[in-house]
This record gives sequence, C-alpha cells and structure tokens, in this order.
Amino acid sequence: MCGIFGIFNYKDATNIAYLGLHALQHRGQESAGIASTDGDSVMRFHRQMGLVSDIFNEEVLKHLKGNSAIGHVRYSTAGSSNINNAQPLVVEYSKGHIAVAHNGNLTNAKIIKDELEKYGSIFQSSTDTEVIIHLVALSHENSTLDRLISALRRVEGSYSLLVLTDRELIAMRDPYGFRPLVLGMLKDSYVVSSETCAFDLIEAEYLREVEPGEIIHITQDGIKSYAPFKKVNRKHCIFEYIYFARPDSFMFGETVYTVRKALGRQLAQDTFVEADMVIPIPDSGISAAIGYSQEANIPFELGLIRNHYVGRTFIEPKESIRHFGVKLKLNAVHDVVKGKRIVVIDDSIVRATTGRKIIKMLRQYGAKEVHFRVSSPPTQYPCFYGIDTPSRGELIASSHTSEEINQYMGSDTLQYLSIEGMKKAVKNGDYTYCDACFTGAYPSKFPWNMQLEQMELFVKR
Amino acid sequence: MCGIFGIFNYKDATNIAYLGLHALQHRGQESAGIASTDGDSVMRFHRQMGLVSDIFNEEVLKHLKGNSAIGHVRYSTAGSSNINNAQPLVVEYSKGHIAVAHNGNLTNAKIIKDELEKYGSIFQSSTDTEVIIHLVALSHENSTLDRLISALRRVEGSYSLLVLTDRELIAMRDPYGFRPLVLGMLKDSYVVSSETCAFDLIEAEYLREVEPGEIIHITQDGIKSYAPFKKVNRKHCIFEYIYFARPDSFMFGETVYTVRKALGRQLAQDTFVEADMVIPIPDSGISAAIGYSQEANIPFELGLIRNHYVGRTFIEPKESIRHFGVKLKLNAVHDVVKGKRIVVIDDSIVRATTGRKIIKMLRQYGAKEVHFRVSSPPTQYPCFYGIDTPSRGELIASSHTSEEINQYMGSDTLQYLSIEGMKKAVKNGDYTYCDACFTGAYPSKFPWNMQLEQMELFVKR
Amino acid sequence: MCGIFGIFNYKDATNIAYLGLHALQHRGQESAGIASTDGDSVMRFHRQMGLVSDIFNEEVLKHLKGNSAIGHVRYSTAGSSNINNAQPLVVEYSKGHIAVAHNGNLTNAKIIKDELEKYGSIFQSSTDTEVIIHLVALSHENSTLDRLISALRRVEGSYSLLVLTDRELIAMRDPYGFRPLVLGMLKDSYVVSSETCAFDLIEAEYLREVEPGEIIHITQDGIKSYAPFKKVNRKHCIFEYIYFARPDSFMFGETVYTVRKALGRQLAQDTFVEADMVIPIPDSGISAAIGYSQEANIPFELGLIRNHYVGRTFIEPKESIRHFGVKLKLNAVHDVVKGKRIVVIDDSIVRATTGRKIIKMLRQYGAKEVHFRVSSPPTQYPCFYGIDTPSRGELIASSHTSEEINQYMGSDTLQYLSIEGMKKAVKNGDYTYCDACFTGAYPSKFPWNMQLEQMELFVKR
Amino acid sequence: MCGIFGIFNYKDATNIAYLGLHALQHRGQESAGIASTDGDSVMRFHRQMGLVSDIFNEEVLKHLKGNSAIGHVRYSTAGSSNINNAQPLVVEYSKGHIAVAHNGNLTNAKIIKDELEKYGSIFQSSTDTEVIIHLVALSHENSTLDRLISALRRVEGSYSLLVLTDRELIAMRDPYGFRPLVLGMLKDSYVVSSETCAFDLIEAEYLREVEPGEIIHITQDGIKSYAPFKKVNRKHCIFEYIYFARPDSFMFGETVYTVRKALGRQLAQDTFVEADMVIPIPDSGISAAIGYSQEANIPFELGLIRNHYVGRTFIEPKESIRHFGVKLKLNAVHDVVKGKRIVVIDDSIVRATTGRKIIKMLRQYGAKEVHFRVSSPPTQYPCFYGIDTPSRGELIASSHTSEEINQYMGSDTLQYLSIEGMKKAVKNGDYTYCDACFTGAYPSKFPWNMQLEQMELFVKR
Repeated sequence: MCGIFGIFNYKDATNIAYLGLHALQHRGQESAGIASTDGDSVMRFHRQMGLVSDIFNEEVLKHLKGNSAIGHVRYSTAGSSNINNAQPLVVEYSKGHIAVAHNGNLTNAKIIKDELEKYGSIFQSSTDTEVIIHLVALSHENSTLDRLISALRRVEGSYSLLVLTDRELIAMRDPYGFRPLVLGMLKDSYVVSSETCAFDLIEAEYLREVEPGEIIHITQDGIKSYAPFKKVNRKHCIFEYIYFARPDSFMFGETVYTVRKALGRQLAQDTFVEADMVIPIPDSGISAAIGYSQEANIPFELGLIRNHYVGRTFIEPKESIRHFGVKLKLNAVHDVVKGKRIVVIDDSIVRATTGRKIIKMLRQYGAKEVHFRVSSPPTQYPCFYGIDTPSRGELIASSHTSEEINQYMGSDTLQYLSIEGMKKAVKNGDYTYCDACFTGAYPSKFPWNMQLEQMELFVKR
Repeated sequence: MCGIFGIFNYKDATNIAYLGLHALQHRGQESAGIASTDGDSVMRFHRQMGLVSDIFNEEVLKHLKGNSAIGHVRYSTAGSSNINNAQPLVVEYSKGHIAVAHNGNLTNAKIIKDELEKYGSIFQSSTDTEVIIHLVALSHENSTLDRLISALRRVEGSYSLLVLTDRELIAMRDPYGFRPLVLGMLKDSYVVSSETCAFDLIEAEYLREVEPGEIIHITQDGIKSYAPFKKVNRKHCIFEYIYFARPDSFMFGETVYTVRKALGRQLAQDTFVEADMVIPIPDSGISAAIGYSQEANIPFELGLIRNHYVGRTFIEPKESIRHFGVKLKLNAVHDVVKGKRIVVIDDSIVRATTGRKIIKMLRQYGAKEVHFRVSSPPTQYPCFYGIDTPSRGELIASSHTSEEINQYMGSDTLQYLSIEGMKKAVKNGDYTYCDACFTGAYPSKFPWNMQLEQMELFVKR
Repeated sequence: MCGIFGIFNYKDATNIAYLGLHALQHRGQESAGIASTDGDSVMRFHRQMGLVSDIFNEEVLKHLKGNSAIGHVRYSTAGSSNINNAQPLVVEYSKGHIAVAHNGNLTNAKIIKDELEKYGSIFQSSTDTEVIIHLVALSHENSTLDRLISALRRVEGSYSLLVLTDRELIAMRDPYGFRPLVLGMLKDSYVVSSETCAFDLIEAEYLREVEPGEIIHITQDGIKSYAPFKKVNRKHCIFEYIYFARPDSFMFGETVYTVRKALGRQLAQDTFVEADMVIPIPDSGISAAIGYSQEANIPFELGLIRNHYVGRTFIEPKESIRHFGVKLKLNAVHDVVKGKRIVVIDDSIVRATTGRKIIKMLRQYGAKEVHFRVSSPPTQYPCFYGIDTPSRGELIASSHTSEEINQYMGSDTLQYLSIEGMKKAVKNGDYTYCDACFTGAYPSKFPWNMQLEQMELFVKR
Repeated sequence: MCGIFGIFNYKDATNIAYLGLHALQHRGQESAGIASTDGDSVMRFHRQMGLVSDIFNEEVLKHLKGNSAIGHVRYSTAGSSNINNAQPLVVEYSKGHIAVAHNGNLTNAKIIKDELEKYGSIFQSSTDTEVIIHLVALSHENSTLDRLISALRRVEGSYSLLVLTDRELIAMRDPYGFRPLVLGMLKDSYVVSSETCAFDLIEAEYLREVEPGEIIHITQDGIKSYAPFKKVNRKHCIFEYIYFARPDSFMFGETVYTVRKALGRQLAQDTFVEADMVIPIPDSGISAAIGYSQEANIPFELGLIRNHYVGRTFIEPKESIRHFGVKLKLNAVHDVVKGKRIVVIDDSIVRATTGRKIIKMLRQYGAKEVHFRVSSPPTQYPCFYGIDTPSRGELIASSHTSEEINQYMGSDTLQYLSIEGMKKAVKNGDYTYCDACFTGAYPSKFPWNMQLEQMELFVKR
C-alpha cells in the first residue's frame, strides 16, 4: 500500500508535502520521497528508505526548492525492499521532466511491460508505475494531459495517481475508484491527498473526492476536470474501511471511525455472546470494539497494552527456545482479564498466528473464556488492487473453516462478521465496494494465471 | 524519570536485560545502557543516547558478554542531554569494578557533593548517582553491601537502586519507597525491575516488591534480605499511578490500569456533567476515561486519534505564521465530535497549552460543549523525588485557580479530581502515598532554598 | 573520470570486484557500485555515494551473491552529485537483466537522446550510459553481443565498457582507445579492469590490453574477440599518463611511473634552471620531479608535506578574514626551503590558484628563488572524452600566456613542457595519443555548438 | 601516542583548536575531543571516536562556544578502544570545572591509583590522566597552579599536559621533556601545540619550546613561567624524530625532515651497498631514503606506491586461502624494480611482517637484489613513556639477531643504523635523547615487575 500527496503553486510547497506525508505515514513505512519544481528549472527529488520524519531533515528540505511538489510513502514488503522502487518516479522524456506518484496496482502491467520491452523499452525498477511513464512517453499526443489519458486507456487495475511537471499537477483515479483520493484547498492553492487526515494537519479545507475515472488538471489558470473513461460502477476498497485508513479520515462518503464502529455494532448483533468485557487488539481493533461494546452493552476495557517503542531496528535476541513474538508489542493486563469472560475484537485474520499467541497469553493470565470476534468476513483471496495481502496459500481462511481456525487459535468461540453484515454496516454496501478479498469477486476479470504472474513479478503498492 | 532492570546468574543475561529495558522504555527515552559481567573479568558496558531498540544492535549485544547484567533507561530532560549522564555508571575503586543504575533523586546530593569536593572528590557527570558511588568508595566498611548501607545512611530522597559487581547484584529501595522496584524469578535466576511489565515480557514470575528500606543481596549462594534503616511510613509516588507507569504493571499492591479506572470513576462521581460522550487524550487518558464512561454511563469514544510516527528527529518546518504543535501528534474525528457535548479526560494538567489546543480543535470541528476533566488534583508543586516536573512557575495550577485555567483553556467547564477523591480511589490512600506534587506535603523536610539549588544543580532521573 | 572492473565465473566474484574497485579508487571517489549475478536469478546490485571501503560492508557484500560481477567508481563532479548517476546501471529489457559500467564520454549522446526521446524513450539519469542501454534494448538483433555492436555503431566518443548478463561478460573499447582497459586472468577466470594495479592487488595475471575497437565476449565456453568497427588510428588519452592513472599501472604499452619520469627528464632538458633543489607538489608531481632531479642533477627534496587526513566531510571553519585553502592539505618544510633556489614540479596547471598559494607559502618560509616547472604543456581545451576538466573559461592557459601566468602565480620563472617535448617523452608520441586538451586537435570532429551542449547537458565520467 | 593543542583568549578559539587538531591528526586517529570555555560558564566539551574531520561538524563546533579551548587526538590501541578513554577529561571539583589533555605516560600511575583507591577515589576511565586530576582535586593548595605542581611532584614518567579552567590555560612538560610541546602566538593570543605544524596551518608564530620541567601559566594578565621541579638532563624521545612526528615540524631544536635525512645519510655511510636504486617504504621511509640516496649517490625511486584510500572501515573479504595484507596499502612498480638491485629504506622494524611481504613482492616482480636498510637501530624494548610499541615478546629484534631477521624477511642483506650512527646524526646525540627502545636505558628507574603491570593496566597515549 502507499500514500500520495500533492500541492500546486504554494510558497512552502515542499514543507507542506512533508507534513502531508507525515499524516499519511500509516499508509507506508518502507520508503518516502518528494519531488518538487519551481516551474522553470529541473525537477528536484529525494527518495530514501525509512520514515518521513527521519528522511527529511532540514538540509534535504532546503534542497527541495519549489512551489509545487508531490510526495509518496511506500509500504514495506518483504522481498522487494529496494531504493529503486521508491517513488515519486522522476524521468526526463521528450516533453521535459515528469514526476509520478502512484497508489494502486495495475493488473495488466506484466502484459504491457512485455510488449513495451519487445519494442525496446528498458525498466529500472520493479514497479508498475514505470509502465505508465513509458506509455506517456510513447504517446503521440501533445500535452501531458492527453498523453496521460492515452496511457491510462491501456492499463487495467487500480490507480490513484499524481503527476507533476514544471507547469501542472494532474490528479487522477481509476474508473472503479479502488483507492481513495481527495481534493482540498490551502489558502488559494489546491492540494491532493490519499486521505483527509493530511488536510486536517495542514489546515486545508476538504473540497471533495477526486471522482472515480476523473482527471483533475491543475495549472496556473486554475482547475479543470475531465472524465475520459467509460463509466463503470464504483468499487471502493472496503479494506480501507476495515483496516488500512486512519480512523479520523473521511473516505468514500463516511468517516472511517464511524464505519468501523458500525462494523463492530453489526458484529455484536450477529455474533453476540455473554461476556464480562470487550477488549480490542490495539490499535486497529479499537474502533470496532467500541461499537461492539456499545451494541452488546458489555463493558469496553483496554485489556491489551501496546508498546509503541518497537522501532524498525529492533532485534529479537536469539534466546534459546522461546520466541517473544507478539509480546514485544502487546501485553495483557493480568488484573483485568483474570477470571473473566472476554470478547476479543480484531479487524481481520490473516495467518491467525498473532491471535493465537494473544489467546494463549490471555489464558495464561487467567481468562475464563475467550471469544474471538472479527469485524470483517474471512479473508480468503489475495488483493490485486494494491493491498499487500499474502498469497492465497498463506491466508488461513482460504483453506480452513471458521471452526478449524477456532481450534487452531484456541479460542472458546470464533466468529467473523458475515458478508451481508459487512454490507449492512456501510452505506450502499450492496454495490459500491470491492470486497474481492472476501468474496473473490474481482471487479475486473483477468485470467487466473496472469494473476499469479502478477503476484510474483510486480511489487504492489 | 528512569527505569532499571537487573538479572543475576543467567546464561543470556544481557539479552534479557535488553528485553527488560525494552519493556521499560516508557520510563525514559533519552539514553539507555547495560553493564554486564561474567564474574571474573572486567565490567563491560555500553551507554548511548537514543532508544533501546536503536542502541543495542547485534554487535553491541555480542560484545556485552556476561551472566549478570543491569540496565537503565533515562528520561529526556531539556538542559542536560548528555552522554555523560547516561547510566549505568561504571567505575573502578579499591574493591574492583562496580556498576550502578539509579531511579530516583537525592535531595541532599548537593550538600554531600560540596563536602566530597572539599575533601578532594572529582565529579564527571551531573547526576547524583555519582555521589552514592563516591560514598561507597570512601566507606571504611569491607563488603560492597556494608559500604552501600553506610553510603545510603548519608543520603536523603528517593532511590531504587541496582548495584552490580563481579560477584553480586544488590537491589535496594529508599525507606519511603517512593519509586517502584519488584523482584522476580526467571527459571532459577533472580530478576529485578522497576515494573512488572518487564517480567511479563521475559516470562519471569513476579515474586514480590523490594520493600521500602529493604536491601536484597543476590549472590551465587542465593538471596538475603536486610532492613538496616529506621522504619518510616511508606510514601509511594502516586504520580506513578496517575501517569508514569505502564497500565499493565502491578505496582504498590494494585494494577495501574485498575487504579486509573478507579480514578476515572471517582472523577465521574465527583464531577459528573451531562454529555454525549467521553473521550480520552490518548494514550495517557484512556484508562481513566473508560472508568469515567462506565461510572457516568456516557459512551466512551476515541474522538482523538494519535499519530505514532512522530519520531525523535521530526523537524517542524518553519512555515510562516502557523505552529502545528499538537496536531502533529493528535487529530480529532470530525464526524464524532460535531454537534456533540463532550467530556475530555486527561490524567493531569501541567502548562495547559496542549489541552488548550485540543479544545480549540474540538470547537473548530464543531463540538457543542467541551467539559475538561482531570483524573488528578491540580499539580502545584515540583517533585524532588525523581519525576521531571517543571519548576513551580511553569505549573499553571500553582498560580491560577481552576476557573482561571478553564478560561485560559477555553473549555465550558474544567474540573479536577479532588485530593480526597484521589485518596478514595486508591487503596489506603490516606497514608501510603506521596502526593507532594498536589499538596506540597513533602515527606522529608528540607530547607526551601536547598530545594531550589537542587532543582538547578542536579538532573533528575 | 571513472574506473571499471569485471570478473566472470569465479567463486568469490563480488569480493574480487570489491578489491578491484579499491585499487581503482583513485579514478573516482564520488560513488561506487557493484552488480552481480549467479547466472540463473535476478541481477543483484548496490550503488552508493562514497568510498568503496565505506560502501561495501560485510552485510552488503553478503547480499551481492554471484559468480560474476562488474563494478564502477565514479568521480565527484560539482553539479551532479546524484545517486541516480551512480553505476553500474541495471535494467530489465526484453532479453532479461543487463548491467553496464562505463568509463568515457559519448560526444553525440545528446543528439541520440533527443532522438530516442522523440520516439518515446524515458531517461532516469543524466549519464550518457543510459543512451547505450536504450540502443541495446531497441536493437533488432538477437544476441546481447549483436545488439551491443549495433548500439555502439551509433555512438561517437570514448568508451571503455563492461556489460554483464546472466550468461556473459562483455568488455569493449572505442575504436580510438581513448580510455584504458586491460584483460587478465585469475586462476581460470577472466578479469577486466581499467588499470593493471587492480590485477596486482588480486594477484591476477596481466594478459593484454583490450584493443581499441575490440569487443571481448566472455562466456562459459571461453573468450572470443570481435573487431566490428572501422579501424582508425589509436588516440590514447595522454592525460592518463600525465595525471590520472596510478604510477604502478602498465598502460598503453608503458609503465605510468616510467612515463612520468621521462616527462620530467624531458622537462629538465628543455627548461633547465640553476637551483638548489627540486621539490614536487605531492602526490601527483613526485614521479616527474624525480625524473627532473635525475636529469638536471639537482637534489630531489620532499619540501612540501601532505596531510592525508583531510577527508570528505572536512569543514573549513569560517574564520574571519583568512582562508586556509591549500594549507589544509600541504605544508612546506621551513628548514628545507629557507634561503634556497627551488624548482617546483607539478603535473599540470588548471586554474593556477593552488600553485599560487604554494609559491606564496614558499616565499613566506624564506625561499630565495621559485622556478615553477610543469610536466605537460599548457592545458587550453576542455576534454570531451571523459576527463572532468573545467570549461575553457576556467582554464587559465586558454586565455593567458605563460608569462602572464608566471606573473599571476608569483614564481620567478614558469615553464611548461612543450608539445614536442611531451611527444618525445612517450613511445610513438607523434601519432598514438589524444592530446586535444593541449592542442585542440580533437580526433573526432563535431560541431562546436554541440560540444557546448554536451558540456552542459551530460555529466562526464 | 597523542597530540594536544590549546589556545587562550581568542575569538574563534574552538575553530582554531579544530584546525590545530587536524594538523596533529597523525599523532592519533582513534578519538578526538575539544573542551572550551568562555570564562564565565560551564565547560563545554565533545569527545568522539573517529577522525577530527568527521567528528567536528558545524553543529558540534557551534555548540562548543568559548574564547579558550584545548583539544586532544588519541591513538588507536587494540584492546582499549573506548569512548571513556577519550580526552580532554573534564571534571568538576571543589574549585570548579577543569579540563585536561595529556600526551605521555605515567610510570607510577598504578601505584598512585591503588593508593588513591585505598583512600576512596573512584576511576571512570583506564587512562592515567585521571590520576593527575585526582591528585589536583586532593591537593591542599589553593590555586589550580599550585595544586598542579603538587600533583605533578607525585608522578613519574612522561607528560606534556594542557589544563584549562574558566580563567587560565596551563601548559607543562615533564622534567625530562620526553614528549614535545611548543608555544606560539596567534595575533595577541598564546597557543600551545605538540608540534609546530599546527602553528603553520593556523599561521601562528612559533615562539619557543615549553622547556622540560617548565610550567607556563597563561591568564588574562599574560604569561608566567615556573620551574618548580628538580632539574634533570633532557631526554627527548628520539622516536619522534625517527617515525612519529610530521617531517615539517621543528622539534627539539631541529626540523624532523632534516634529522630523518641525516639518519639516512649516516645509514648510507655505515651500511653502503652497491645498488641500482634506493626506494622508501612510503610514507614514513621517504625522508631517510632521500638522505641515503644523496649520500650513497644511488638514484632515489618511488618503487612502492601507496593507496591512500584504505579508510577505517575497510573490510578484507575472507577470500579462501590468500590474505591481501600489505598489498591493500602498497604496490610495487613492476617496470622499476624488474632486474634491479634495490636498497629498501624503512624507518624501523617492529614485527618484520610487513617488510617480509614487501620483499616477497619485490622478488615476485623481478628484483635482482633486495637490501633492506633501517634508519634506526633494532627496536628491542617497549616504551613506557607514551609510544604504543608492542610488548617485548612481539618485537622481533628483542629475540633475534639481524641475520636471523634478514633470513626471516628474505632480503639479501639487512642492516640497521647503529646506536652510535643514530647519535651522530642528531644534535647532541650523546646525551639529549631517550633511546630506551633501542638500548633499554630507561631514564627513570622503576622495578621491572611494575613495568609489566604498567603495560597491562594502563593504556598508553
């Protein structure tokens, strides 16, 4: 997953982009980058592995002059930690310099890449974003805008995209609108961001979403909107609601926190169990647990305490037999859980290993009953639209029933929110969302073997 | 403030000390250090500015061989960020090498230091811990234990102390028992820690507190307990309960989380106000807010979201007029607070500047009423026993009434927990705790001017 | 300027490449990189700003698995210090992964680049090496070798080039043979290097030069040589002899040290002056000064001492009026120079500022006469074949006579080696060398305005 | 070994100290430090492992305010690389803050230390400098000056010492004058340095040596000289001439370069051999080789080329059988040495391993004869006055004859300069120098077992 941010024609553009990325840090912690331009010279940029606050020191920010800027944060994925995949991508082509920041995943990138290579293109990263730039450069259109449109006509999949040149900032979103993208205003300047929480920090006014399939062209002359693609039904990523987005963001028409509480409420209605308390797995399960607690009228307790100092460089000492695992991050409160019937709320289950350890700890500390409740349906299918889920084989729910998972985890009972329940908890739940990770109903069809290639060959953002 | 941890005669002593410090990281983020010995060679040690997880990489841990170790984390205080003040302090004296880790503050350190200097002692740090070591070295007693006892007879104030030599680990606590210190067992080895949360991580068994005034002497022959000092009434630091300790620690006979909830409940009883929701200032206000919510029967909501990625190196860009301040860490959820009557719970008020900004933000986002409730009494007096409170002049409650603070902060109403309320919420509240920061009733008397010197000349840990 | 090194099918390929680059460090200190392959997986690579010994720690070397590797060191040039220009360049194209390391400069890169961009190519660096890779990828030939030949038919200028794929290492040199490139053998494996000093370090056997215009194709089946280009007269860069190469390297048929001594001898014959001693400007003037001293029969003295600890991060404190400049690196020996008639030998004069300061220092320390002698002719023209000389305007000899420079520098007399003298001092001096920096006689003709573009748009290596 | 530098009452004191240390970097590369004061506040200081140019960046220099400063560079010794041993040592004692920088070694430090510990002193480093500070603090005298004198009456061995307080800079040298120390003037301010090369860099005027046994007291009122100790014969360290000092320094009444040449000339007179060339082992053998060459009338050649980019972090790859050793630093020039009779000049032989490898390389490259000549007598005894020679057991000359060493090294002949020859080559060579490393005639007598303790327990500087 990734986060993107852009600002056009503002005195302190780079500083604002830096703050924007800071607010979007939860969307990617592997690398971060900013490209900036003052409209008449070369594109400046800096990309580095690490956190926004560590990368952009005073010296770097000072170097990134310019009144327009785009930035990108990238998620850490195991195999492909590589500075070459950091964004924004900055290249020179026939029309000058261009910088691109991309959140999403192109499902036909491999096909286009093979084709482009056949005609002589070279690739310097393993990101599909480079495919888009090649298509822009190869387009016979004249303007950046028309080149982009012609490029995007070729690609399938998900993209929220920011393009910066020395005279324009272009923001666009794929026709399904998988990934979020919002438009705001800071004084007289336009800003674009993956989430509204970045606007709150910089005190920009939220205007509206960039619509699915919309291209917004921002220049010195103001803003223009285009909708060059065939209209299709929206397919917003419901997993943004469930896990990925920050609770204080307003997204797809609702506040994330409110949606999560509604998921928790629905979960309580559907899977109620007598208990002494509801405890979340922090931080991601908190909102849903509050909803569950309120609906079920069972007290909410912070029975698991998180250590926020784990850091990126933490080395777990190889101490003989034991593996400290989840305890380095979470500890249960003895006094709270001892002798109690507990409902534990998590947002989703991937491999079930963390949940298993937590349940074991709760029992060790004396919990009488542990009922595990998940505020989303079983995650059974990989995401091809930008969320970094593991392959199907690693998704426990793809090969095990809820009862088997319950057995594995050691809970007294385990229940998921049903797909219907999930749809009830969100506005227009029946038709507005992509829920392929739960249902396998991928909005855009593509041959299965291609998906597999896709999984292996491209790094998702 | 500081955290300390020790382990004696255990194969992976340094690794365990490292994990212990990781669990105590909340007690100090400025510097960390570990000293270790294998019982027959020189004392190894490593001290560095920064977080435990950044300081102790594989290479450093490998160098710190030994089957016994003590560790220390130190709090960041403005003026004295200095590697020379990092601990454990390791020195060589007539009896060999000795390492000392100290949590607390000696109120007569300046007087003893002047005296020691008069007789020719030199000081290489600005910590009062060095005073203790000088006294140990100057003692005419024979054993480390007797030297320590004779040294500690001279000092006043607070100390939880760990001393490591090549043949023993000594743990002790001042007669009032201001700071916490607990004893545990890991397999057949004794461990000592500021808080029990470290025992949970390393899966050690909690045995008991090191008692106020007790000296525990751990050697190859086992453990011996001494109580050489005149017995006085316990004076546990009540601020550990209110703010400092981790909620999952068991301290002074109760679980911190449970005490905080009780403080919140009492606060609700004493300062109830009609409202739509209770929201904590995260993370420190969460436990009390849950208690308040349950007692007042007003829904608990996570209306303020914390960004945990701020990091130590974050540079706030100097952007013209605005100062982003609290927003870099906290954001309110528009949807939750809009049009609502809100009770905001914080654990204490120091300068009131953060609370003021939060209230302003809540009003901007449309809150109808904001009632600020504090789960402790007004903080009016500096702490001379180890908590790094600012000087009296900076404590807003030392010179302003609650109503004046309410005006300043812009809340509709502001109410503190009363001293009586606080005492009711904790076990034996009437006589077991030091509440000098609220009452000025310092357990040990000392001339006021000395306090002032103390404030200026010594760095508190 | 740059240095390149390659090795094919050797167990410790990356370690050997690392040592090779260490021996070539004098050819470039800005950045270094290694790409490696084990013949059946993806190309691994690591590029970083800094010195070879700082970049390649154990962890990095461990990651760079493979039995074949190429490496590159790059010279620091003011404007374009940029990790994106570090080499080897590694890309994926229709035939798989390819890594390229380049020493030289393409004089028609800008023209080809414009053309490539017109047809849709994108550029991610400001190096001309990327042009070659595009041409390879766009070629309709089948094998890497044929593609390379077809690509190189398009380019003009200088190149010593190493290309690595998962099944071959290709080494080639432009038809003029501007830059050096030598072939050696380490046990049963072929090695290629800019200079023989790298072979000495790794104890490889020197076989021969890669001939001008030759392409050497190294595979599992052995080595094959091709000469696909029209034969032209050799034009070895004479400045490699004068300044750039390491004295212990055997290059263009002679040992650099021996050539430098011959230049010094010739200089003595042509510009003899009565004096008490000959002193070099260390380190580059030492060899010529020894030659001068022996021919003129004037004692050689080390009258200037160099401080080798200046380092890359040295900050000259802004101390009021003075500028320490050359003194941070060089100091004269009072006792040696006082009252003496001195011949100072330098290899060349660029801006004359350093020489001026040295002469001033010698006079301050009491030198009676200072005669400046330069072991090359006046440097009047920029190099378009890879040496990072400044633009013509900055070359003092392009606009000033020797007498004017003498006046400016404050020497008693100043004399250069004549072009004839220089030609006499090297083997076949009349026709084998490119001496365009002295004569303006660029071997390959190109419109002057293109040169200017070239100078501005491409970074030379 | 170490280098020290001090400056009193100068506007840019810290910047000047930084430059001074840069010029003295050859005297110690392990750690560096500066302490500074502006006369009315606390002593500021910064000490760090590494090179001067890497440690003192702009931020650090900015923090080190003050108009007086002392600095220290420390040599890397295997076992005790420890930031706690870095200097200047800064402590607080009854008279305020004091900073001390020390070059030398106290031979009775262990005895005094034991005694001090018996009376209760604690030691935080393993340097003998801490002994001096304890003695100063324990003195009953009133002024810093008198305390220092009383302290130094207790110690034996070598010291060139700088002491800085908020009102004075004190420079002193032990009665034998083992280590160098010189006084200079920068505008109206006094400067003190281990060597004159630091004065050349900062453009200070050299005034004179600090005399053996002299104490120079610099205050706002000017400079005063004291000679409180019993006068003894000078015993300047002759190894400073042979190896340690920079050739451009004026020391003990002569220029180091000139002395080295004289040693080389004498060596030629005493050990002449027919040969084709004289080549030095760079850089330390160059001056003597020039002297030898001139006296023997055999051409001087730079037959061995040094790679100056080895750096501190260089990792030698573990490549199967071979060990690259000396080749990482030095390479011979094939063309120069092939078929030649060579005299190789080195300044001294310690373990003979480097020389052996060089001779092997020369033979591999075709040298016909290799005659090894050493510009000092056999090094047979450890130094107890501050030079970091290995223990006797490791000094090959302590247990082997010259002929045995010749056999081991593989040279055709090996000859040392005789002790008489050495004495002839320096002024007043008969009585002015400590040559204990060659003769075992330690100027100050001490029991041999104490020497051994000394060797083990204290780190020499």
